[in-house]
Amino acid sequence: MNLEEKTIEEDLKYEGSFIKVIKQVVKLPNGNTSTRDIVRHPGGVAVAALFDDDTILLVEQYRKPIDKVTLELPAGKRENGEDPKICGIRELEEETGLKAEKFEFLGKIAISPGFCDEYIYLYKAEGLYKGQINRDDDEFINVKKIKITEFKEMIRRGEITDAKTIAVLSYLEI
Amino acid sequence: MNLEEKTIEEDLKYEGSFIKVIKQVVKLPNGNTSTRDIVRHPGGVAVAALFDDDTILLVEQYRKPIDKVTLELPAGKRENGEDPKICGIRELEEETGLKAEKFEFLGKIAISPGFCDEYIYLYKAEGLYKGQINRDDDEFINVKKIKITEFKEMIRRGEITDAKTIAVLSYLEI
Repeated sequence: MNLEEKTIEEDLKYEGSFIKVIKQVVKLPNGNTSTRDIVRHPGGVAVAALFDDDTILLVEQYRKPIDKVTLELPAGKRENGEDPKICGIRELEEETGLKAEKFEFLGKIAISPGFCDEYIYLYKAEGLYKGQINRDDDEFINVKKIKITEFKEMIRRGEITDAKTIAVLSYLEI
Repeated sequence: MNLEEKTIEEDLKYEGSFIKVIKQVVKLPNGNTSTRDIVRHPGGVAVAALFDDDTILLVEQYRKPIDKVTLELPAGKRENGEDPKICGIRELEEETGLKAEKFEFLGKIAISPGFCDEYIYLYKAEGLYKGQINRDDDEFINVKKIKITEFKEMIRRGEITDAKTIAVLSYLEI
């Protein structure tokens, strides 16, 4: 069965500082029409920075949409279609002050493809050394170094809930 | 450091069929103000349905926001704050026609907490038996049974990109 939906019309409903919201009328595989609300997002990059002592670097930050302090991979949005690897190297240094000798692509994940086009590119960084912290004006972060065994326990206990941070473990283990 | 941001004001910018978009003015930890675009989403449930022959059930469907046919866990949105377990049992049967003797909570994931409040509750279903398919009018799906070894290979090769479907592997392995 051909599953595709064709766009009949689309309307820009909201344009924020980085997201756009679009409402589409689509033609379904059976010929009927339906509507789709779509959030356009520039996408981003997240980095599993691993040290030789079996620890991983995570950043603690407040996330307004869920009103919680989370532990997540260092990450950031891509700026104007920036190369994801360059974006990852930049974000890692800006947020944590670290550079990496090895920066390896793990995979890209579609964060919620039912309504949003955001992809996050995941990288593994090793051979870490000191660079220069340079955070955005509205970015407040605590950097934490956590044992991989404890990282897994925190996921199992529900203390880490961020999807990209949990997904990266799948790539590290397969 | 206290990382929290306080809401100073908020404006509803768009209300779609299931998402709402809100623009907030917030007070940052350093006393300055900034704005946050937030997408409110009802959240959902996704199910890793596992058979005794080391296979997992995935659904193939077209995702308009990324214009791609994806392979994902059977999943669905929560209706009006519905209990996630009941939602998962319902969505699994509606999408795939299967019921489960065992339905176990794995964890909940915040899909993109930088701009969206969507949580997906992940479950593991075992002891599968035949129920009744009952799909939404605008839902077109092919159900696939895939070996776990092949499932991992497909993630590694970048053929599976859906975040919840990749994240679930972390819970199954830890």
